Amino acid sequence: MSGWIAVAGLGPGDERLVTEEVRAVLAEATDVVGYIPYVARVAAREGLTLHPSDNRVELDRANHALDMAADGRRVVIVSSGDPGVFAMASALFEALESRTDPDAFDIRILPGITAMLAAASRLGAPLGHDFCAINLSDNLKPWDLVEHRLRLAAQAGFAMAFYNPRSKSRPHQFARALDILREECGSDRLISFARAVTTPEERLLTVRLGEATPEMADMRTVVIVGNADTRHVGRFVYTPRSVR
Amino acid sequence: MSGWIAVAGLGPGDERLVTEEVRAVLAEATDVVGYIPYVARVAAREGLTLHPSDNRVELDRANHALDMAADGRRVVIVSSGDPGVFAMASALFEALESRTDPDAFDIRILPGITAMLAAASRLGAPLGHDFCAINLSDNLKPWDLVEHRLRLAAQAGFAMAFYNPRSKSRPHQFARALDILREECGSDRLISFARAVTTPEERLLTVRLGEATPEMADMRTVVIVGNADTRHVGRFVYTPRSVR
Repeated sequence: MSGWIAVAGLGPGDERLVTEEVRAVLAEATDVVGYIPYVARVAAREGLTLHPSDNRVELDRANHALDMAADGRRVVIVSSGDPGVFAMASALFEALESRTDPDAFDIRILPGITAMLAAASRLGAPLGHDFCAINLSDNLKPWDLVEHRLRLAAQAGFAMAFYNPRSKSRPHQFARALDILREECGSDRLISFARAVTTPEERLLTVRLGEATPEMADMRTVVIVGNADTRHVGRFVYTPRSVR
Repeated sequence: MSGWIAVAGLGPGDERLVTEEVRAVLAEATDVVGYIPYVARVAAREGLTLHPSDNRVELDRANHALDMAADGRRVVIVSSGDPGVFAMASALFEALESRTDPDAFDIRILPGITAMLAAASRLGAPLGHDFCAINLSDNLKPWDLVEHRLRLAAQAGFAMAFYNPRSKSRPHQFARALDILREECGSDRLISFARAVTTPEERLLTVRLGEATPEMADMRTVVIVGNADTRHVGRFVYTPRSVR
């Protein structure tokens, strides 16, 4: 097979956070597939076909990429952030499982700056000690499991980063998540809402859990909850390397 | 104060994974501080002073950077990977806490590709579902806490990434961590050892927990333990987006 697939992370939004490796592979591509707003970040050029598609069609998109690679095309699947974090890399491997010869495909995953680390860098260093990353959407797992993970993560003393905290189709779950966090961590714990980081729409807000409301987050927000030692220093929020 | 500090992530090793933002700030710097092997990655040039220092002097290094910035120097603190993940950003904020006017300092944190995400991209997508990152070193926290976190992380069903899994000064702890993981996850769980990813010394190894031995890791290794659904597809290791 002469075609290939690269799953490339475009980072959080700022073009200066796109790696040279990703730029190079986009320059060689014949086809780019991905969610509409991510494909919109790739410049059109002669010889490149853009295939934007809607959200929630990840497996169709992955199969389309596999079919094109089998036809000799050079395909880049674009994700925002890092493709291995709640993004297209796993969807591609899920699609690959139903192919008869997975190893016949030339596949590379190209890392990018994931949203939680971009958000952390803009806030200070809230993920400077052990931490976890949880996708709060229950599209692909039961909500009970999300609640269970939140409680255990709090009991483990992890700082936490939440992807997809809230959407129009499930407005009440994030309120429930905040209740659980207040139960487990108390109302003084710091929580940061980092929206559209590194873009012109960036908005950063840090409050105590007792003051946090669901409306502080939307689907473009990464939420970061500190551990028991997380605190302010000047305008920054940081988690010390050591525990008290 | 006309000086500034940027804490910059150089990524895992491959120069094509250094962001343009980090390149730009290195081009403006008068001084670069950091751990010896990281400073060695910065090209010498007229007007730039390199200040390599040893491991475990993070607070001294941070104070040196603050003093130089107060003197009007343009200082870059270099970390490998991402500066906010078990690296220099938190150490800088710890040092900043003892200054009388923290907000007088011009400080920016510039994200990079952290080791676990580079390792995940080389392996496939083992962190494609909820996951946690744990520093296995007990330099800055009691070992009991590490054990407690390992157990709760396993019970939460997180995939796990371990930084600093093993060093000469504490050869037995990683063996203990493997025992705990076998107790909590069983011996069939996949575990990957990703050493010096994206460098010429890169070495990738994935085995079952029952076959894992402490010698498979050293201080240049990131260890990734899958969740109960993590599996092989062709030559890749991946964790599905959904739970069984």
